[in-house]
Amino acid sequence: MPTTLYDPPELTAGTLRIVPLGGLGEVGRNMTVFEYGGKLLVVDCGVLFPEEHQPGVDLILPDFEPIKQRLDDIVGVVLTHGHEDHIGAVPYLLKLKSDIPLIGSGLTLALVEAKLKEHRIKPFTLTVAEGQRENLGPFELEFVAVNHSIPDALAVAIRTPAGLVLATGDFKMDQLPLDGRITDLRSFARLGEEGVDLFLVDSTNADVPGFTPTERSIGPVLDQVIGKAPRRVVVASFSSHVHRVQQVLDAAAAHGRRVAFLGRSMVRNMTIAEDLGYLKVPDGVLIDYKKARDLPDDQIVYMSTGSQGEPMAVLSRMANLDHAIEPGPGDTVILASSLIPGNENAVYRVIDGLTKLGANVVHKGNAKVHVSGHAAAGELLYCYNILKPRNVLPVHGEYRHLMANARLAQDTGIPAERTLLAENGTVIDLRDGIAEEVGQLDLGFVYVDGSTVGEITDADLKDRRILGEEGFISVIVVVDATTGKVISGPEVHARGFAEDDAVFEDVKPKIAAALAEAAQSGVRDQHALSQVVRRTIGRWVNQSLRRRPMIVPLVIEA
Amino acid sequence: MPTTLYDPPELTAGTLRIVPLGGLGEVGRNMTVFEYGGKLLVVDCGVLFPEEHQPGVDLILPDFEPIKQRLDDIVGVVLTHGHEDHIGAVPYLLKLKSDIPLIGSGLTLALVEAKLKEHRIKPFTLTVAEGQRENLGPFELEFVAVNHSIPDALAVAIRTPAGLVLATGDFKMDQLPLDGRITDLRSFARLGEEGVDLFLVDSTNADVPGFTPTERSIGPVLDQVIGKAPRRVVVASFSSHVHRVQQVLDAAAAHGRRVAFLGRSMVRNMTIAEDLGYLKVPDGVLIDYKKARDLPDDQIVYMSTGSQGEPMAVLSRMANLDHAIEPGPGDTVILASSLIPGNENAVYRVIDGLTKLGANVVHKGNAKVHVSGHAAAGELLYCYNILKPRNVLPVHGEYRHLMANARLAQDTGIPAERTLLAENGTVIDLRDGIAEEVGQLDLGFVYVDGSTVGEITDADLKDRRILGEEGFISVIVVVDATTGKVISGPEVHARGFAEDDAVFEDVKPKIAAALAEAAQSGVRDQHALSQVVRRTIGRWVNQSLRRRPMIVPLVIEA
Repeated sequence: MPTTLYDPPELTAGTLRIVPLGGLGEVGRNMTVFEYGGKLLVVDCGVLFPEEHQPGVDLILPDFEPIKQRLDDIVGVVLTHGHEDHIGAVPYLLKLKSDIPLIGSGLTLALVEAKLKEHRIKPFTLTVAEGQRENLGPFELEFVAVNHSIPDALAVAIRTPAGLVLATGDFKMDQLPLDGRITDLRSFARLGEEGVDLFLVDSTNADVPGFTPTERSIGPVLDQVIGKAPRRVVVASFSSHVHRVQQVLDAAAAHGRRVAFLGRSMVRNMTIAEDLGYLKVPDGVLIDYKKARDLPDDQIVYMSTGSQGEPMAVLSRMANLDHAIEPGPGDTVILASSLIPGNENAVYRVIDGLTKLGANVVHKGNAKVHVSGHAAAGELLYCYNILKPRNVLPVHGEYRHLMANARLAQDTGIPAERTLLAENGTVIDLRDGIAEEVGQLDLGFVYVDGSTVGEITDADLKDRRILGEEGFISVIVVVDATTGKVISGPEVHARGFAEDDAVFEDVKPKIAAALAEAAQSGVRDQHALSQVVRRTIGRWVNQSLRRRPMIVPLVIEA
Repeated sequence: MPTTLYDPPELTAGTLRIVPLGGLGEVGRNMTVFEYGGKLLVVDCGVLFPEEHQPGVDLILPDFEPIKQRLDDIVGVVLTHGHEDHIGAVPYLLKLKSDIPLIGSGLTLALVEAKLKEHRIKPFTLTVAEGQRENLGPFELEFVAVNHSIPDALAVAIRTPAGLVLATGDFKMDQLPLDGRITDLRSFARLGEEGVDLFLVDSTNADVPGFTPTERSIGPVLDQVIGKAPRRVVVASFSSHVHRVQQVLDAAAAHGRRVAFLGRSMVRNMTIAEDLGYLKVPDGVLIDYKKARDLPDDQIVYMSTGSQGEPMAVLSRMANLDHAIEPGPGDTVILASSLIPGNENAVYRVIDGLTKLGANVVHKGNAKVHVSGHAAAGELLYCYNILKPRNVLPVHGEYRHLMANARLAQDTGIPAERTLLAENGTVIDLRDGIAEEVGQLDLGFVYVDGSTVGEITDADLKDRRILGEEGFISVIVVVDATTGKVISGPEVHARGFAEDDAVFEDVKPKIAAALAEAAQSGVRDQHALSQVVRRTIGRWVNQSLRRRPMIVPLVIEA
């Protein structure tokens, strides 16, 4: 996107500065930095999952550049809830400075601590609950209950002398949630009365008309499908979706079935959720996976990961008969999950594989087995009306989501100039009830690949795309260092190009001739000779085969 | 998929043999071969578009292997309609034998002839219309009108002494089509009375409940959006969707706007459609693109390609400001098209880009601007009930679609053993009113890449996936041919791996040491030395960086 970069002014006394480092113009890596009086407060620190134009990348982090030199000024990181796109980058931040305090609800911190353990980091934490107030440096924080697709999510109100900010985190407004913990509109109303100067609000579903149905509506569908299933049942969902799993446990119990958890993250998260009391396991329902296989087929439900078609997860492996549980006729597989854009092909491959094995596959395309975790347009209108914020910053979403959210704000009477459409790196200052853009920083994507962080660049990804689309041809020639004469080669090898290297017999004499000509005109430089090779074979491949592989010429002097 | 291959028996007199070469277990490259009395009839000959696990591939063809030695036996190719997944592979078949006759409707043949012209092939053609009967060798053909998302689509009834077969091609049952040409259920009823022995039926939407809405329902929506648009309007759709374009022309005319076609295939196809009378252009509505730019903004509609986010098509280029028409605030862009699974990320990138430029983007997610071209479950039930076929072969679809279609057939009373779930290469014999599987051929994917056909193999694609995910590292070492001692190198280069080759300084001594050790124990073989290099650097990369790039070792003797 063509963004004009410009430096913000010095931050003056009495002004609150807000800089989103991630989550704007994308769904993921949510992270926002608040600065007041020389101190920094971070809200969320998540990861983004790569798309197909970022091949081989494991994770994408927010660009920590603006805070790297100011780690000692950070008073804490507030984590609104335990989803990867809000907590996944915490280990990478704490690798820079391990004693930055983490603030969040019980479940959120338990999930982030389990993750940090894998990175061998033991964090400083402060557990908070809805209604609680805490002062961190110049920031007075108040936590407000919100409802989302994971329990124990919190919005955070941030008071400084510059004004009152409310950041929702991810939320929706299920009026009949399983755990009775609704988004606390009474507190929203009270904050509205006090006067919200800036409202940072979840935009994920802002372009979805109406209202998100209640999570509770899925229960009867699960109950019916599991009740009718003649043999084994496999349910796949997100491994942090405690309430979805709760409904599966309840349905299983109602039909005399036992439940075994499958998949590392499912087992880990549900153990945490049960230990902390978020998951209420009906007596005797859980069974160890290894023992479950001895039960009759109509007495078992497997609760597994892999609902997005992830190739290494349990469900994909079942569909490929690469798992101890091999689905067959009479078995039922339920994908109680969303279909995240970009995953369609992978998910449909899994559905087709399972169908082909004879399983009955139930998914959101043919049954009401999923509801979203985000507030739709109708719910957002309630928020704007009850809060009447002075300024709005739509966050968490692609540009179209942010834009749709801004329009909703404007529909409730908030002036267009008070709805800020920002990007990652936009610097926003709040002062005297006015929030405005005062700078634009240059932020990048930080790629995690294997154990490397930030070493893979966009140039590497461009190379990968060319390699992945076209393969490569390498040409090795050994030349005499003094005469430039070809001593050995050209040897031509290709990978990802075509089966048979014999296709290159035609071009070898052309390369030798081009090199001889270059040598005759006095070219000795290895780089220049490499270019001669590259041009010769590149032109030949393009003209004769209409292909554009990467060409890697190597001229060696001997 | 684990399929047991087995050879079919000799084809006996009086038996009709049916072999689908493409379109089963996939959406695309539809092609079925019928054999009777030593002669072959082909129905459709389409292409499949590659998915992300087939990088760099332009097109995928049906595997012609089973008919390659029998080209002289082919009496003709019936083309049911002019979509790429039904006609796209015709040039590649005619390159094997250019005088195979093509049979189809006027529009279908015009579209295939335009395509063949680009390949410099002038085909033998026979234009047919609904109701027409033609004998081709032992096959008595009767053509039946069907309604689809392109005009002039035909089903084909094939009579041989073995029985009556009906193949729908792609179809739906719009009861109020724009051109009044409905799927001819009277003929279906008559064929049903006569007795349909085998019904090959479109499965694309068999898992969609209910009925596909009428194409006509889009008109008022287009009319309203175009009527309210303050400035320029761009409509993107499929370049063969004559009726969609017709509705855009009508809406533009109603609001005093003129229409310019954008994109090579849009201009070509609409010229054909207008010449043949399928597109009725309101007087004076069309305008050349170059002249259109002089019109006031509120008097123009651009009708363009690129509705699937194809990176080189007009719409993507507009979104990237890489087109002479630069969308801005007040402009309206309508994606009057489906969202084909797998294209979501690309399409949403275009929508976000256009939104960011200020355009109002209308698409099937927020307005009723698209209906499908395929019969949904409700329509298919009508077909089964009116035809009462003895045997059913669901075609055109992924396995889940074929399975859903088979279930619909069974719901209407067709026995399960008479609904055939086949794959590409399944050999089906029809005799005495019974169709059954008698063999399974081994068919592959034939990849078109650049000007090469069938040279890229699945092994090449596997290499490409590794290269595209991880990049590669090449290591060149020059060794003395007699002593095995390293003369020069190791030189290590990487692409798509990381920015800086300096990371390899650590491993170079390890490689040299491993080679010295190998030389000392008498290893001289180039291949064996290469393996030493590969193992040494491979282990190092994996352990120190947790990465698995392709490793290309080259040991050169000098």
